[in-house]
Amino acid sequence: MTTPIDYAHAHAEQFREQLNDLLRIPSVSTTPELAGEVRRAGQWLVDDMKRIGFPHAELVDTKGHPIVYGEWLTAGADAPTVLIYGHYDVQPAEMIDGWDSDPFEPVVRDGKIYARGSTDDKGPVVAHLKAIESIIQTNGKLPINVKIIFEGEEETSSIHLGDFVTEYKERLKADACLISDTSIYAPDIPSIVYGLRGLVYMELHVQGPKTDLHSGGFGGTVHNPAQALAEIIAKLHHPDGAVSVPGFYDDIEPMSDAEREELAKLPWEVEDWSQSTGITEPWGEPQFSLGERVGARPTLEINGMASGFYGEGAKTVLPAKALAKISCRLVANQNPHKIYELLRDYIASITPKTVKTELRLLHTGDPALTARDSVAMQAAIEAYKGGWGGTEPVFTREGGSIPIVANFQRELGIPVVLMGFGLETDGAHGPNEHFGLDRYYKGIDTIITFHEAYAKLHAAGK
Amino acid sequence: MTTPIDYAHAHAEQFREQLNDLLRIPSVSTTPELAGEVRRAGQWLVDDMKRIGFPHAELVDTKGHPIVYGEWLTAGADAPTVLIYGHYDVQPAEMIDGWDSDPFEPVVRDGKIYARGSTDDKGPVVAHLKAIESIIQTNGKLPINVKIIFEGEEETSSIHLGDFVTEYKERLKADACLISDTSIYAPDIPSIVYGLRGLVYMELHVQGPKTDLHSGGFGGTVHNPAQALAEIIAKLHHPDGAVSVPGFYDDIEPMSDAEREELAKLPWEVEDWSQSTGITEPWGEPQFSLGERVGARPTLEINGMASGFYGEGAKTVLPAKALAKISCRLVANQNPHKIYELLRDYIASITPKTVKTELRLLHTGDPALTARDSVAMQAAIEAYKGGWGGTEPVFTREGGSIPIVANFQRELGIPVVLMGFGLETDGAHGPNEHFGLDRYYKGIDTIITFHEAYAKLHAAGK
Repeated sequence: MTTPIDYAHAHAEQFREQLNDLLRIPSVSTTPELAGEVRRAGQWLVDDMKRIGFPHAELVDTKGHPIVYGEWLTAGADAPTVLIYGHYDVQPAEMIDGWDSDPFEPVVRDGKIYARGSTDDKGPVVAHLKAIESIIQTNGKLPINVKIIFEGEEETSSIHLGDFVTEYKERLKADACLISDTSIYAPDIPSIVYGLRGLVYMELHVQGPKTDLHSGGFGGTVHNPAQALAEIIAKLHHPDGAVSVPGFYDDIEPMSDAEREELAKLPWEVEDWSQSTGITEPWGEPQFSLGERVGARPTLEINGMASGFYGEGAKTVLPAKALAKISCRLVANQNPHKIYELLRDYIASITPKTVKTELRLLHTGDPALTARDSVAMQAAIEAYKGGWGGTEPVFTREGGSIPIVANFQRELGIPVVLMGFGLETDGAHGPNEHFGLDRYYKGIDTIITFHEAYAKLHAAGK
Repeated sequence: MTTPIDYAHAHAEQFREQLNDLLRIPSVSTTPELAGEVRRAGQWLVDDMKRIGFPHAELVDTKGHPIVYGEWLTAGADAPTVLIYGHYDVQPAEMIDGWDSDPFEPVVRDGKIYARGSTDDKGPVVAHLKAIESIIQTNGKLPINVKIIFEGEEETSSIHLGDFVTEYKERLKADACLISDTSIYAPDIPSIVYGLRGLVYMELHVQGPKTDLHSGGFGGTVHNPAQALAEIIAKLHHPDGAVSVPGFYDDIEPMSDAEREELAKLPWEVEDWSQSTGITEPWGEPQFSLGERVGARPTLEINGMASGFYGEGAKTVLPAKALAKISCRLVANQNPHKIYELLRDYIASITPKTVKTELRLLHTGDPALTARDSVAMQAAIEAYKGGWGGTEPVFTREGGSIPIVANFQRELGIPVVLMGFGLETDGAHGPNEHFGLDRYYKGIDTIITFHEAYAKLHAAGK
């Protein structure tokens, strides 16, 4: 008897070609001129869903790029319903950024597909459709009810998804949400991310004189705003790397010893860290491991800075103003708006009378910890075992942010499972992004297993 | 009997039209496409000198823009020789920068000529030629010997003038150098600048990770180079505004009490300073007056800063590197190369192990103090009295740099007299640059008087 996994394996080549078709569409959501391509990628998914047999699949217009929405709700009222989320938009990519081949013409080298979006997130998105196709082609029906959201604006902060979720709240009702947009710990060690950091993104503006001045005519009498900005930034961390904003750490729920021990079993060795960063000396809170600093601790980062003249050559200007982009990654129970206010008040308190400062809030995303005891989470553990030859997944916390996770938890009140297939080294957002073909196929197997396991565990729990 | 000054007054309108002709030529030396216009402006001056009667006037080619060189050496061996320096190139100017009228179509409003280069330095340059023309037309001969250098690269750091001076050293021999490219204290208070600051311009490069990193994946473990740059910049000044680089002030010749008293008679009031800067709180070394901080004290200024992402919106990058443009204005007896080395060593000493830094030297200019007891300086005092209805000029130190002054002093071994006609508020280098017509005409009168006074004082001194 043929299983869905058998079917998937038999159609591996075809499934790869289909992924390639989607990878060829430059659906760069940050580039306004490519809006048509973003839509074309969304339409490609709708068409494929219809071809597979989805009773409902449509492109839902938003004020930005459209959302792909689909439903296959024929498993019956007793079966659980899963809401699958992914995104089909990608980061910009140009050969000049250091690509070895056209980012929108996928090629396989050393068993990896090289193309923009291969790992983030078109590969996992298509894996979900191919898993469903394999089940349908084999069994004629799905064991669970499925609702799908594939977003076209994940790389532009999901600005219209919140409204969509609120508006479609009733229709999106489900027992769990499944997202494949995270990394696993190692190629042979699948992992489930249970902690994601939140984010508050801000701009610090420092205003000195009303216009740029001649540094010869005014230097020495005017507090240079670039210098004032530097002085303020220098006061945002203690010498040991801890953030010095009063109250910054107040709301953090401390990790239990058990959790720290568990994370310590998956160490981020300095050698590996050095290989990724090119530097030899780590930095940051010494009482926490590298993995904890990234996954379990909040941070304050300078994302950019600009003032005065920074082109080729020399210009003896005393700048009128200076700018810094500052963002904080936040952990569970921290509120991005409260952190913004703490930082705003602290910066106001250390701003000298000689300049004016303003801290502007750009956007926020809530941190999330996902429940590890839900039925869907148990299904994910079984699923990885199905895809990775019996290997039990480990649990990790990730340093990045997927604000939609907290949004789904809050708006829909359902557990979210982060069952990803990427690797931190896949080059998401960078040149030569790639996705191991093995992980594409293991991902399809894993998702097939998830559907089956979730149906069984749900029935057993009744 | 008609005097040269009578002649000048009678030809005021014609002299203004001639200045307008030169102002209409966009001789922007920093814009490669305008090289032909720069040359055209130089040729205009050569043509005018020939028309006036200069026995020798030529355009001397350099590796950059040409130098106008002229001689009129018929006053005899007993008469002194003055080397007049000015520049005919100008800063860039576009309507979009905030000009109220075409920067290269001079118009008179409220008694001022508005045009790029009107005050810096075409107005003073043409005033020199019109003064000589007035003397020649009246007396048929000059009372002193004249050599003229009008440069076309002053706004691009005079990069080829040094070579020219070295090569023409014998030919440029003179008793004094006269430069009209500085500001006077107030419209009714002529002044002679006797102190100019030197300059050392540098770039500070901070290197963190080998490439930009995802702030979520690495933030908290990597010393952010923008932050590291800020921390270094914050350590370059003491809280009171003094530069904290060890040895920075060591070579300064202290001002005498008499000199400080003299400068104190020309105060820069906080109200005037506020009007120029738009800020209420001055900054800097509290034990020095505003005028002293700019004219008599060295400074360290951040001219620009850049790191990571500083465009519209948000990008959660952990930058690989950060850059600052740093320049020091230096006072007499400070050596720009030594100051660079002090700063380089200090920054190396405060650079943490977590980042790499490099301080690059871009260019230098020597500070200068001019002799106040030379015969030419006495002539300049008489000259201003002639141009300003008997008002005695005051002596000031200027915060800006004219590196060629130290160059002339060193290479030619002659006293330099800075007899300017501009005002700090003329908008040199900014939009709506202008030059008061009264100062153009008073300048011509002053230069005529200089020639006559210098001849007399020189003869009396024999």
